[in-house]
Formats: sequence, structure tokens, C-alpha cells
Amino acid sequence: MRLVDKSNSFRLIQTCSDTLARAGELITPHGTVPTPVFLPVGSQATVKTLTPEELEEIGVPIILANTYHLYLRPGIHVIQSMGGLHKYMAWNRVILTDSGGYQIFSLAPLRKVSDDGVIFRSHIDGSEHFITPELAIQFQEALGADIIMVLDECPAYDDSLGKIQQAMARTHEWAERCKVCHSRDDQALYAIVQGGILPELRRQSAQHLTSLGFAGYAIGGLSLGEPKAVTLAMTEETVAFLPQDRPRYLMGVGSPEDMVEAVARGIDIFDSALPTRVARNGALFTWGGRRNIRNAAYTLVEEPIEPGCDCYTCRTFSAAYLRHLFTCGEMLAYRLATIHNLTFVQALMQKIRSAIKDGTFSSFRDGFLANYKPTDEQIRISQKRKWLKSRR
Amino acid sequence: MRLVDKSNSFRLIQTCSDTLARAGELITPHGTVPTPVFLPVGSQATVKTLTPEELEEIGVPIILANTYHLYLRPGIHVIQSMGGLHKYMAWNRVILTDSGGYQIFSLAPLRKVSDDGVIFRSHIDGSEHFITPELAIQFQEALGADIIMVLDECPAYDDSLGKIQQAMARTHEWAERCKVCHSRDDQALYAIVQGGILPELRRQSAQHLTSLGFAGYAIGGLSLGEPKAVTLAMTEETVAFLPQDRPRYLMGVGSPEDMVEAVARGIDIFDSALPTRVARNGALFTWGGRRNIRNAAYTLVEEPIEPGCDCYTCRTFSAAYLRHLFTCGEMLAYRLATIHNLTFVQALMQKIRSAIKDGTFSSFRDGFLANYKPTDEQIRISQKRKWLKSRR
Repeated sequence: MRLVDKSNSFRLIQTCSDTLARAGELITPHGTVPTPVFLPVGSQATVKTLTPEELEEIGVPIILANTYHLYLRPGIHVIQSMGGLHKYMAWNRVILTDSGGYQIFSLAPLRKVSDDGVIFRSHIDGSEHFITPELAIQFQEALGADIIMVLDECPAYDDSLGKIQQAMARTHEWAERCKVCHSRDDQALYAIVQGGILPELRRQSAQHLTSLGFAGYAIGGLSLGEPKAVTLAMTEETVAFLPQDRPRYLMGVGSPEDMVEAVARGIDIFDSALPTRVARNGALFTWGGRRNIRNAAYTLVEEPIEPGCDCYTCRTFSAAYLRHLFTCGEMLAYRLATIHNLTFVQALMQKIRSAIKDGTFSSFRDGFLANYKPTDEQIRISQKRKWLKSRR
Repeated sequence: MRLVDKSNSFRLIQTCSDTLARAGELITPHGTVPTPVFLPVGSQATVKTLTPEELEEIGVPIILANTYHLYLRPGIHVIQSMGGLHKYMAWNRVILTDSGGYQIFSLAPLRKVSDDGVIFRSHIDGSEHFITPELAIQFQEALGADIIMVLDECPAYDDSLGKIQQAMARTHEWAERCKVCHSRDDQALYAIVQGGILPELRRQSAQHLTSLGFAGYAIGGLSLGEPKAVTLAMTEETVAFLPQDRPRYLMGVGSPEDMVEAVARGIDIFDSALPTRVARNGALFTWGGRRNIRNAAYTLVEEPIEPGCDCYTCRTFSAAYLRHLFTCGEMLAYRLATIHNLTFVQALMQKIRSAIKDGTFSSFRDGFLANYKPTDEQIRISQKRKWLKSRR
């Protein structure tokens, strides 16, 4: 038995009798993380607008940082020589680093993939770089996160079948190379399932990676502009072939309604920039759905945006004042909205987990979805595709 | 004796034997403010990037808000119907509101002044507005600050003698009208001395306003692109004709070295956007002068920007990390730098006050100025003029 299973493992606590939902915990060197869990995104070693102290006050146990961004700025060697990522950003709780695969394939303006690795240009200054699976692990070992990810090739939603198959095969080979060279036993290494939106490929990918044996399994290549029904269907197809005793991580999903549905399909871990990004645009989560705080209807509203919410923003400020800050473009607005949305997601995850443990998850899910009005799906898809395109 | 002298007054505690420096306190309905004091600028009912909680942690007893900005957004009636400015922005300590005179004459793209008042266009949407001294007081009474300012006409640094004389005469008439219509005894009304950079006019203005009798006296129309030596000379010329028993407020001055020199010339109160604005540009105050945190020399510096500083930023983060946040344009950078600079200014004011009380102000001043390297004066003036021009 490897040390990783002791210091960095997953414990399944309870499964739902009606759905595939499960409550568990990730045991890591920087603390135990109750699951299901949502990871706020802190790509550049900062969850935008917030201090580590504020994240702790919200109750966030784990965040995500990104190897691609940190490699470009400030440089992996800088963080390593400053004592590692936890110390650098003054965050003492758990960190997961993504390998940078997705960012290379979505942000970098030019890239050339071979079996060996990928040559890409920086989206910041156009400089050329080369990364291999081995380097991705070496970088993540230097950063020192608790959970690290294999380097994957992430095809676009509308790529050809041939390209998707090739990316999957390469992801499998790279996962194996990552596993071979991974040397830090205090870090858990997760594999990433690819296979586009083809159930058969998803099955193959899940089975192949499971046969190699990883501490956890992520589902990559989804939430890239496909309809939500497809995201959930692919999640189902993949989870069916993943082991019960390992955590399952649906990458890039973070809207409240999607997380509730994905938990019902057996997902334990989520990450997404959505809750923090829409907060900065003035879209605030409530149990009735998203609210646009810029709406003039809030001009004189003395209540907070979500009465009863115990976040700093709602405890302290009226919706009217928050609207004023957004109207003026005041930076405090973005922070206050981020605090609120992350508190909402944190509360949602706690409710989900309690419901699973109490055996009431199905009714919680029905009640939540009956009240929470999601964004119109056609508008969502067109906005998402526009956003993805704007990053290329 | 008016109630204002009881609930909202100035108490002189100690004067320096070598200079005109004094320690005192402003007694207001929202607490007692030790002087000399610096007011962080929160024009739009928010000190940019900070929460009220953070300002309290820094030890800030009083902030400045602006009638011009709040009149345009969200509108005076909104704040009034929300229970006043303190409640609206969740700040329970002292507030001073500027009348908007300076903003109308520096920000509004078009204006037409008559003895009656001033017609101006909003810098936001070009809409036309009319303000009189009576309205300026009515608005400030509705906002409910502890200290309010008369409406003044603020000429540009390079206006003709005739224009400066006319602006001064009008400021005097308007001050009288403000005093007549001011009805809230719990608010202290301060007059504003004008007179450009002409000692004779400064004397006339100070004497005239003193003869009318106000709770405090501000020196307006300075720090508008003239050399620092001129600012200080005009401060001297004005203070000589202001009463000992009232607070003196030098508007728009906020660089550390200028405040030390102005205290030596008898000033009690300062406000300026400088400490917070330069913070957002990455210029951080240290006892040796300003530091540019974007400098590559900070890439690997594990110490905070000012070792020994007890602000949240210096207690928590390395200079290297702060540089990284600035390099990436991360919003947290602006907040952390603002916290540091306001903590520095707060500490400076405390040191000044202690030195005055201990009778060691002169040597403190010498020591401070020997260590603190100010920005090159020629560069400062050209940057200031460029900045003032960009706002027009």
C-alpha cells in the first residue's frame, strides 16, 4: 500500500438510495474536505477579489490553481523558491492544481501537439513554450498542491471524431507517463477522462484510466458549449465505469442547478469560474435563481440581495448600496458579489451533503429545482460559445 | 452658545513650541477624531477597494464623501430615504462631505457660474444641473455627515487675477448664504478660504470668513499643479489669519512629506485621493519613500514591502506575491496596496500627534524628512497637471 492512500485519500461516508449521490471526504495534508465540494477558481494564485482570510470565513476548504497560468507568471521556479504555492499565496487549506492541459488548448493562441508533448504560445506575450506530461508533473510537484492532475489533450466540443479519438488516446498515454514519473507521495494524482460526447469513447476512457489506477478521476472536455442535457448524459456514461472508492471530479461545471444534477449522477468534486465570474458581472445567486443587481428595481431596496443569507455582504449592506457600487464600477462591488456567490455555493454544497446523509437528497433536489430558475438554455449556450471564442 | 459647540466642536490639546503644529480633537456625533488627521477619500460612498470593516481595522476615524458624486449617483434622495449616508454605506464613524464645489469646477465638462449659483453638466451623462449654496447645504443636511462644507468657487491654478478675485468674492457671499440656511445643529459647517496664490487675497479671504464665524476653516484652491513650495507658502499666509480655536483643513493635500510640512504650519485636517490612488498604481509608502512594487527586483522578495509594518498586507504577504498580483492585474492587488498605504498614513499621523504631545515634533519632522525620499518635484508637477487635465 502506497503512502498516498494514507495521507491523501477518499473516504465514502454515505450513498443515496434513490440516486447516485454520495457524501464523502477527501483526506489531504492540508485538511479534510467534505464532499460533494465546489472549488473556487484561483488560477493565478488568487481567487479573484478575495483574501485567503475571506475564503476561510466563507468556509471554503479547497481551491483550484492553475499550472499554466503560474508557469507563465510568476514562473514555477519563483513559487518553488518562495516555499511553494500554499506559502506564496498564504493559503493553508487544500489546493488542487490543474495541469494546464485545458488552458493550453483553450487559451494559447497557437499550439502544436505531438505524442511527446505540446508546443504552445503564451496568451500573454506570444513566447513559445513546450510542455510534456513529465514536465506537467514536475511543475505540480514544485508547486506542492495536495491534489494534482495529469496533462490531458482537451479537444473542442465540435472537433471531428478522429480528432477526439486521437486526443483521447494521447490523454491515456500521457496519463500513464504522468503516473510513472509522479514521485511525491503526499500529493494525490487524478486522471482525466476524455472522449468528447460519445458514450462509447467515454466508457473506453474511464475503463482504461481505471485500469491504470489513480487516486481520483476527473471528467474533462465537457461544459464547453454543448447543451446541458449532453453534459449530464456524458457524466452518467462516464461515472458508470468509474470505481466507487475513488473521488469523481466534473471539471468546469459550477452553476447551482448543474451541480445538483451532477451530484445525483455520482459526482463528488466541481470547479468552475462561473460563480465568481458572474458575480463580477452583477449576477447574484439566490434560492430563486440569479438576480441582476444592476436592475433599477434595487435602487431603494433596504434588504440585502438574499434576506437571511449570513454572508458578510448580506449581513452588512442593502441591495440598494450594492447596486450603487456596481453602477459606479466601484471595485468593492466585485468583491461583495463574489463573497455572496461563493457563500451561496458553499451553503448549497452543505445542504446537498446534509440531505445525502439524512437520506433526503431526492426531495432536496426536487425542492431546489422547483424554486431555482436557471438561465434560459438557448441564451446560456450562445453566451458560453461567444465567451469561449473570445478567449481563443 | 449654539448646540454645535457642544456636540460638534474642536478641542486644542497641545501646541508645538518650535512650529505651529498642534494636537487636538474633533468632537462629533459619530466619535472623537484625534488631530492632525488624514481623511481617506470615499467620493462615491466607498473608499475604493475597502470595506468599512477594513477601514476600522486600519484605525481610520473619519472619511470624506462627495456631494457632487452622490448627487449624480445614486441621487441625494436615495441616500436620504435609505436613512442617510452613514447607514447607506454601513460606516458608523465620522464623515465629512465636501460640498461639490471643487468637483463642479474640475470634473464637470461645462459650467456657467452666476452670483446665484452654478449650472453644470454631469461628467457621467452630460445632463444639465443647477446648484446654489442653499442646495449644497440642503443636500449635505440630507446626507447627514458630521462635518459639511460651504459651496465655493474654485478657480484653476493659472486663472487670471480678475477671475481669482471674482471667485473669492463669490465664495465669500456663498459662504454667508450657506451659514444662513444651515439648520442642523449636529453638523459642523466649515468655510473654505480661496484667493489663488496671492498672499494678499488669502489674507482677505481668511479674515472675511473668520469674521462671519464658522466651526472650522478649510484652505481650498491649492494642490492644483502649483509647486509644493507655493502650496506651503500659501498655507502659511492663510493660517496666520485663522483663529486658534477652530480646526484648519488643507484640502487636497495627502503626500506624506507635504502633510508633515503642513502640520508644522498649523494644519489639523487633510484629505486627498493620493495615498489610495497611487496604491492602485503600485506605489507603496515606506519610511524611506515610495516604492514601485511592479519593479522586477521584488520577484523573489520574501519580506513584506515594509518589514515591521503591522498592516494586514505586510503581516500576510511577501512583496513578491504582491508584485505578482500587480503584474497579473489581479483586483486583490489594489486592495492590499490601499490597506498598506492607508495604514502608513495613519501611522504617520499617530507619530506626528505623539511627537507634538511629547514636545518632540521638530526632531520628528527632521528625522522623517531626512529618510523619506519624495518624488522628484518636476516629475510630480508634470504628472499632476497631466492628471488634472485628463479629468476635465
